[in-house]
Amino acid sequence: MKTINSTAAADGFRLPAEFEPHSGCVLIFPERADSWQYGAIKARKAFAAVATEIAKCEKVTVLASAAQYQNARLIMPPEVRVVEMSSDDAWARDVSPEFVVNDSGDMRGVSFGFNAWGGLHDGLYFPWDKDDAISKKLCDLYDIDMYDNGDFILEGGSISCNGEGTLLTTEACLLSGGRNPNLTKAQIEARLHDALGIDKVIWLKNGILGDETNEHVDNICVFCAEDEVLLSWDENESTEQHKVCAECLEILENSTTADGRPIKVHKIPMPSPVYMTEEECEGLDLFDGEPTRTTSEPLSASYVNLFIANDRVVMPFFGGENEAADKRAQELLQKIFPTRKVVGIYARDILIGGGNIHCITHQIPEHK
Amino acid sequence: MKTINSTAAADGFRLPAEFEPHSGCVLIFPERADSWQYGAIKARKAFAAVATEIAKCEKVTVLASAAQYQNARLIMPPEVRVVEMSSDDAWARDVSPEFVVNDSGDMRGVSFGFNAWGGLHDGLYFPWDKDDAISKKLCDLYDIDMYDNGDFILEGGSISCNGEGTLLTTEACLLSGGRNPNLTKAQIEARLHDALGIDKVIWLKNGILGDETNEHVDNICVFCAEDEVLLSWDENESTEQHKVCAECLEILENSTTADGRPIKVHKIPMPSPVYMTEEECEGLDLFDGEPTRTTSEPLSASYVNLFIANDRVVMPFFGGENEAADKRAQELLQKIFPTRKVVGIYARDILIGGGNIHCITHQIPEHK
Repeated sequence: MKTINSTAAADGFRLPAEFEPHSGCVLIFPERADSWQYGAIKARKAFAAVATEIAKCEKVTVLASAAQYQNARLIMPPEVRVVEMSSDDAWARDVSPEFVVNDSGDMRGVSFGFNAWGGLHDGLYFPWDKDDAISKKLCDLYDIDMYDNGDFILEGGSISCNGEGTLLTTEACLLSGGRNPNLTKAQIEARLHDALGIDKVIWLKNGILGDETNEHVDNICVFCAEDEVLLSWDENESTEQHKVCAECLEILENSTTADGRPIKVHKIPMPSPVYMTEEECEGLDLFDGEPTRTTSEPLSASYVNLFIANDRVVMPFFGGENEAADKRAQELLQKIFPTRKVVGIYARDILIGGGNIHCITHQIPEHK
Repeated sequence: MKTINSTAAADGFRLPAEFEPHSGCVLIFPERADSWQYGAIKARKAFAAVATEIAKCEKVTVLASAAQYQNARLIMPPEVRVVEMSSDDAWARDVSPEFVVNDSGDMRGVSFGFNAWGGLHDGLYFPWDKDDAISKKLCDLYDIDMYDNGDFILEGGSISCNGEGTLLTTEACLLSGGRNPNLTKAQIEARLHDALGIDKVIWLKNGILGDETNEHVDNICVFCAEDEVLLSWDENESTEQHKVCAECLEILENSTTADGRPIKVHKIPMPSPVYMTEEECEGLDLFDGEPTRTTSEPLSASYVNLFIANDRVVMPFFGGENEAADKRAQELLQKIFPTRKVVGIYARDILIGGGNIHCITHQIPEHK
């Protein structure tokens, strides 16, 4: 793996959209006892269900620690590749490099700094050195050259790209004190331009309130086509979340893509709030002496936290009182993705860890 | 990675020879403090020199522990791929699967049991579980299906194959009490037939005396063409080693390949005995309270412990009083390999660990 002393933009590379063709997808096997209840048993099954579904149409690689390799190999189906790699948790979306491509089909990796969603300012765990090393290790594993942006903190879940130079993000995350507090908004845009070939950033204000990633955009609004987005929508007009969603809508309706096209917004109604049970909370180790979850704070449940695979969309189902909402969201998404099969995976056991299907996956674009 | 409940022989797969075309090569970054003196600093440089040379003609992957990944990445040149994988030591030859191919160019892995060259009987370290896991992990990494022969102990260095069903080995190793003591010679031959498509085993008696692998064949005699071998040759007729070499020669002269051809033997004169210095011995951690090396036992130096890469042969040089012997062996080998460049690498710091260039490498055959 060669480190390239240039930028993707200067070299004619761009960040493809998730809905463009993939050569594969990466996940990380869950293990951390303060993130995943009761030894991560249920989470692992949920991760395996996601991996199994994606593996039907693209090559899935699951990273597992030395201690968990054999277990991961047994739980994952044979068509999934399991590769040993150490990590601090299981969020492939955020710790992977971004993969950029050029018109010749070459692929390179762009490695960013990772500090557990806020570092010592308001990050979620310490240390995070193993996670921070993954983006470079993945470039090495996939045998591609790399642009090193280790001095710029960026997680994959904090951005959504249309593949043509337009990027969605939230101010709550990218301007937070735990990311790049010494950079102005304009400087951040310049970094995104150079590192990923982004010509235009659409800044939403907030994401899903209470989302401990400082409100990653991939839990509230993501591109599903060059000029179309999925917007998580709180139908209860009395909530703070509804105000946030409405504000996002207004911004989107007053924005265009980099090439000047208006943006079509698909509202995807949110599930009713999902809470941890007492039993689930008791299944988690403490972190730094404190409980990581309580029964009183809603989990950040959203249907747009999905993965767009080559011939299918893998979306979260929450079950229980959300069964009807699950089906309704699936039907809506099936209309939005007519060429793909929309498959629901029961994802409560992923949500408990603090994210969802998009957060635990990272696509590798098609390349030569 | 799928585990196939069949055998390579039954499925029409064969073990190619090392001199057939490769798609790549694997090494393991040295780390173990009772194998590699003074923090393995010199060994790492020697491994990097080997990797760099091989990488000129095929893709080299170096496996490194989580703790050593970053260091390995810095020491290895950019064209080498570094992949995290845990191990107990650094002998890729012995812990890798054998890679078998069929006429269509498909490749599969054959995983054998590994017990650190003799297990609790006379093995060299305990535990060896990380090493034992590597053959399966490499099949997973290279995304190939696998035959599991975990109940049969076999190291890659204990066999040399001509690619056409003939295999060289030593009785000292394959019949040793620490390998498969419950199997007869005929049963071992049957396992080698089924697992690797071997039709004929040529049994040498011994290898390099004092070789702590129970005298692996790859340190004394290896195939360099379908019907030609390199035989390490002790020119001092008064030694026990000379008797061993002469016995090998006699066996070879009275053997044929599986298809009935006589075997041409190239004698490669051995270097004069190489001993550890006091300073080198002091640079090694104890193992189980005992020194792993002393200044009084010669190291198992041999020129045939080389790697046949796609367009070059990478052979060990021992330097010092062996400088002339190094050059003479190189010239001999250059005549035997007229289409490849024979390159010498100063390998004392590999030899100190207990093996040489062949022991630290494992080729991946060309495949589709």
